Amino acid sequence: MKPSKHVIHDIQRVPAELVEGMRAYPTATIHEAYGAQGALFNTIKPIHPDMKLCGTAVPVKTRPGDNLIAHKAIYVAAPGDVLVVETASFVEAGFWGGIMTVAAQQRGIAGLVTDGAVRDTAEMIKMGFPVFSRGVSIKGTTKNCLGTINHPLQLAGVAINPGDLIVGDADGVVVVARADVADVLAKAKQREEKEAKISAELAQGDTTLALYGFSEQLEKLGLKE
Amino acid sequence: MKPSKHVIHDIQRVPAELVEGMRAYPTATIHEAYGAQGALFNTIKPIHPDMKLCGTAVPVKTRPGDNLIAHKAIYVAAPGDVLVVETASFVEAGFWGGIMTVAAQQRGIAGLVTDGAVRDTAEMIKMGFPVFSRGVSIKGTTKNCLGTINHPLQLAGVAINPGDLIVGDADGVVVVARADVADVLAKAKQREEKEAKISAELAQGDTTLALYGFSEQLEKLGLKE
Amino acid sequence: MKPSKHVIHDIQRVPAELVEGMRAYPTATIHEAYGAQGALFNTIKPIHPDMKLCGTAVPVKTRPGDNLIAHKAIYVAAPGDVLVVETASFVEAGFWGGIMTVAAQQRGIAGLVTDGAVRDTAEMIKMGFPVFSRGVSIKGTTKNCLGTINHPLQLAGVAINPGDLIVGDADGVVVVARADVADVLAKAKQREEKEAKISAELAQGDTTLALYGFSEQLEKLGLKE
Amino acid sequence: MKPSKHVIHDIQRVPAELVEGMRAYPTATIHEAYGAQGALFNTIKPIHPDMKLCGTAVPVKTRPGDNLIAHKAIYVAAPGDVLVVETASFVEAGFWGGIMTVAAQQRGIAGLVTDGAVRDTAEMIKMGFPVFSRGVSIKGTTKNCLGTINHPLQLAGVAINPGDLIVGDADGVVVVARADVADVLAKAKQREEKEAKISAELAQGDTTLALYGFSEQLEKLGLKE
Amino acid sequence: MKPSKHVIHDIQRVPAELVEGMRAYPTATIHEAYGAQGALFNTIKPIHPDMKLCGTAVPVKTRPGDNLIAHKAIYVAAPGDVLVVETASFVEAGFWGGIMTVAAQQRGIAGLVTDGAVRDTAEMIKMGFPVFSRGVSIKGTTKNCLGTINHPLQLAGVAINPGDLIVGDADGVVVVARADVADVLAKAKQREEKEAKISAELAQGDTTLALYGFSEQLEKLGLKE
Amino acid sequence: MKPSKHVIHDIQRVPAELVEGMRAYPTATIHEAYGAQGALFNTIKPIHPDMKLCGTAVPVKTRPGDNLIAHKAIYVAAPGDVLVVETASFVEAGFWGGIMTVAAQQRGIAGLVTDGAVRDTAEMIKMGFPVFSRGVSIKGTTKNCLGTINHPLQLAGVAINPGDLIVGDADGVVVVARADVADVLAKAKQREEKEAKISAELAQGDTTLALYGFSEQLEKLGLKE
Repeated sequence: MKPSKHVIHDIQRVPAELVEGMRAYPTATIHEAYGAQGALFNTIKPIHPDMKLCGTAVPVKTRPGDNLIAHKAIYVAAPGDVLVVETASFVEAGFWGGIMTVAAQQRGIAGLVTDGAVRDTAEMIKMGFPVFSRGVSIKGTTKNCLGTINHPLQLAGVAINPGDLIVGDADGVVVVARADVADVLAKAKQREEKEAKISAELAQGDTTLALYGFSEQLEKLGLKE
Repeated sequence: MKPSKHVIHDIQRVPAELVEGMRAYPTATIHEAYGAQGALFNTIKPIHPDMKLCGTAVPVKTRPGDNLIAHKAIYVAAPGDVLVVETASFVEAGFWGGIMTVAAQQRGIAGLVTDGAVRDTAEMIKMGFPVFSRGVSIKGTTKNCLGTINHPLQLAGVAINPGDLIVGDADGVVVVARADVADVLAKAKQREEKEAKISAELAQGDTTLALYGFSEQLEKLGLKE
Repeated sequence: MKPSKHVIHDIQRVPAELVEGMRAYPTATIHEAYGAQGALFNTIKPIHPDMKLCGTAVPVKTRPGDNLIAHKAIYVAAPGDVLVVETASFVEAGFWGGIMTVAAQQRGIAGLVTDGAVRDTAEMIKMGFPVFSRGVSIKGTTKNCLGTINHPLQLAGVAINPGDLIVGDADGVVVVARADVADVLAKAKQREEKEAKISAELAQGDTTLALYGFSEQLEKLGLKE
Repeated sequence: MKPSKHVIHDIQRVPAELVEGMRAYPTATIHEAYGAQGALFNTIKPIHPDMKLCGTAVPVKTRPGDNLIAHKAIYVAAPGDVLVVETASFVEAGFWGGIMTVAAQQRGIAGLVTDGAVRDTAEMIKMGFPVFSRGVSIKGTTKNCLGTINHPLQLAGVAINPGDLIVGDADGVVVVARADVADVLAKAKQREEKEAKISAELAQGDTTLALYGFSEQLEKLGLKE
Repeated sequence: MKPSKHVIHDIQRVPAELVEGMRAYPTATIHEAYGAQGALFNTIKPIHPDMKLCGTAVPVKTRPGDNLIAHKAIYVAAPGDVLVVETASFVEAGFWGGIMTVAAQQRGIAGLVTDGAVRDTAEMIKMGFPVFSRGVSIKGTTKNCLGTINHPLQLAGVAINPGDLIVGDADGVVVVARADVADVLAKAKQREEKEAKISAELAQGDTTLALYGFSEQLEKLGLKE
Repeated sequence: MKPSKHVIHDIQRVPAELVEGMRAYPTATIHEAYGAQGALFNTIKPIHPDMKLCGTAVPVKTRPGDNLIAHKAIYVAAPGDVLVVETASFVEAGFWGGIMTVAAQQRGIAGLVTDGAVRDTAEMIKMGFPVFSRGVSIKGTTKNCLGTINHPLQLAGVAINPGDLIVGDADGVVVVARADVADVLAKAKQREEKEAKISAELAQGDTTLALYGFSEQLEKLGLKE
């Protein structure tokens, strides 16, 4: 039942053109296009509201208060990957800081998602490295413990597999299983087109009650006032 | 005991000139002018710190995870109204998003206050629509359930009636009962004038201990050091 | 066991040149240089992410919901001091607001750290007065109760003595005991130099695994993959 | 807008026979019988799960961390009254303890409901005095501040007027407005009889799907599996 | 991506003799025997500390604030099954109460695990029906909405599939995947035997430092004091 | 600044007769007798409400999620000592369980206080070993990391030194500095005697308003109603 190896090097990823395609869509649109699946708990937020993230997941399991395996993960991940680091929700230590950000950007890593905390946030914001975390903490960690890289894990209420797509913006983070990305992309496109059309109709004086059939629904439920 | 109708269309509102008058004052000033009443719990905050809100309340009670009645409320409210939406404090779904913001702005609605969550926050900030919520969530809602519009309700520790004045800024949200607005406005004006005068005196080297009589109060309590 | 006096006027402070020296360093660096000591709980945050604070502590103990002693503290503190106000973690009242900020700036006070709440945040941000708090609340306080000034206290998990150094930035707040500041400053300088060197080496393609000896540590723990 | 007097002595109460009648019903039944109204937030719980409370409300507003007005309230309340004490949700002090419990029982007071904290819980449990609070704290309070007695207030999300009925059990606390008690009592009786009948039918092999028409409802929604 | 049917009737279960075997072991032992996997977040607790639960999972996904699908689940589940009900962590309504407990016991259902809330807890405790929840709430739900039964879901940080083993006691709830139960049972037995042996040795004056080799480990880390 | 040794063996303790004397008093009484000092945050509670604890502190600092140093502490502590274990408030692992309880009781240890979590609670309750913790968690820990024993630390808002007195009951935990115990004991005795006398007077119809002079205080504040 336990993984025989700590690190899995060989994972399949979402093709680059699908990643690029998905980058254009807000997380809320993707979540709807995915059948209302994949949103992390809303406690995971960007450290700056303008941050936008889109890439393939490298799931990392650390010991709370230790970041040795996270250093290793920087060098296991490929350009465009997002480190998704599970810490047992430990926010009393910033396991990720300025030096790791320099190293990760050097490696072309697309960003970080974690249920733990980070530090040196001003530096990360300045460097434009997107980080979505549950907290910020001045405290650091030890560098003593193993963990796993590219094993499936649960983070903030969602099961994440290596190579899944991770998208983040001001609203939070959504995960799309690798096999579903093409389908979700198509549906997101349709949804955005539909929403643009509806926005235009609203601007001309139409109502959501009419456009979505809500008046009918309200009436069916007995509200005719 | 239960309302016989879901929607009440005919409500009385704070006169427009009083709304405009109140817009100039910070929430903390209004709260003091109102005798330390009307502040919502401090968990209700603007989605962007620069947001400012002033308008008349249209209280809306929704089912957690459903926004059908909130759509209806957009078309029950009048220009200048603030939707005040009670969701049983459910923050694991954003019941309000981009399309509803477009519809609400088209209708002249002044803003949204809720103990629930919203999504598409980047869009709302860009559109300049003031939103004060307890959370942000990627997840959406169903459109299946009734609720009430313009019935009195409790939100974040305060009783809110239709037509009450709602004021929000970076510090949070304060509610003033319709009948009390004129009086609170006069007192807020006095308070601001007094504070301006005190600020000027402080700038000239005076102290709060002297200006407010705190030295005397401290001495009365036994502190003469 | 109880203090015989409420206010202690005569305290020793960190020398000004050490305060100035420390101002240059991020809180995370100082915390590490101090042997992983002194960070407040991560619930204490700046009211604006750009705020930076560095000064000597004047610890103040207030009654939750009363700010009389905080007014007194403005006039006990010396220029460059930071008011460190313990409120029993009471965040349902903003004991500090605009007028107090005017008074404090007039007195040359360097900033405020508190486990309580503040109000008039927009004003403080505009005035450039650094405030680190656990919350923001519209509600005010009474002015009836005594407290202590310049007695040692516990705040957010750290023991704070009068004259200790307080440093705050976007990551939070760290406290350094007066006697340790010179040593911590020297170590912070070394650490920053080391980090700058490592950043440069990373930019040239080196890895954290090699630079910090983590590969060796991982191997020792059995990870050779 | 502000009350001219701190204490109102003359209040109307729910007649004793209605209080006695309501005592027999669980809070969940009363809440349903009342049209799903009146339940306090579920953070207010008995200090011992066997505690049961039924009486008329004497609303008391205290300063957080002060209990002077709560002492006064013991002597304003009549036998059978429940003290309902609002503390701005301050749980870092137990404003009510053993001595007050002795005094209250001597006066025939029926129990205590508060959004604050209490101490000496072992003693209260031993004395059989029902207490529903948001917390337990060793710390005590000062005895310096005024408050109000028998003014309406908001507590844990519900508006409470003097003389309202307060019922508490292991599930929490529910409030019924004085004017509605007779009607709610009749409906609670009907509901309990209906539930007893349904329990009996379930015991004979019937199903909730059939007894409540849920099969039909499921089918209408499209679930026929 | 979305399930084509709401209810799956045909699931595989852990064989009865394995369920019975596992019933003897504490959750902490099972968790260790399972390689430190399967424990729900520690916010899910029994409503009475003496409750013990062991059975096969019927995962149910409800709308927050609606229990129609939970009624259906009572009649989809087989004797010995545990209803595992996901509510989006909504604790401001007790979706399960006395009548449902009567119905569930009549059907031979082994218990309930939920990230939501329940009510009528005194009744459930009296009836001996084990319930593990995140909260208790007086408030009820509507009966209007569909959901899913026997679809995989995430609850309190763990992925749960229909037919998995659910074990609960005073420490919380642990989930074991169906395919792993036999193996975990064997390992739990070994662990309990080892712990009994160690307890006996400790009783004779031996130490955990010696029995587990911790002295050696401490010495290796440099602690020889 | 950093301790040169991990373990300090030689500490001074409160004399046994003072420990025995203090055992008789409730934590709330001791806290008052100590001048309203020493109470831990109210998040630290006994795992069973009947638990009572009194002994001398052996402060232990662990890494979150590791209990190696806690094992060592069992054998550093003397009979009558209380282990006071700081875990950076990490409650997602029970670092203390059944085996450690057996070992600790064998050594005569008086109990455990921690800001972390424990497991095997049913076993500890059965064995009568008093445990005061911030949480309960099924999950275990590694045994890899050092920490400190008998160094001063901060726990739940209070500074604790080796040899301080620790008292716990249903209301929580209070700490008294070693040098202050004799004085606090005398004052606690006086306080209990005074409270017994007041209880007797209340039983004869006297009031707290008269006995404590509260009527006079209320009148001075303007309340004569």
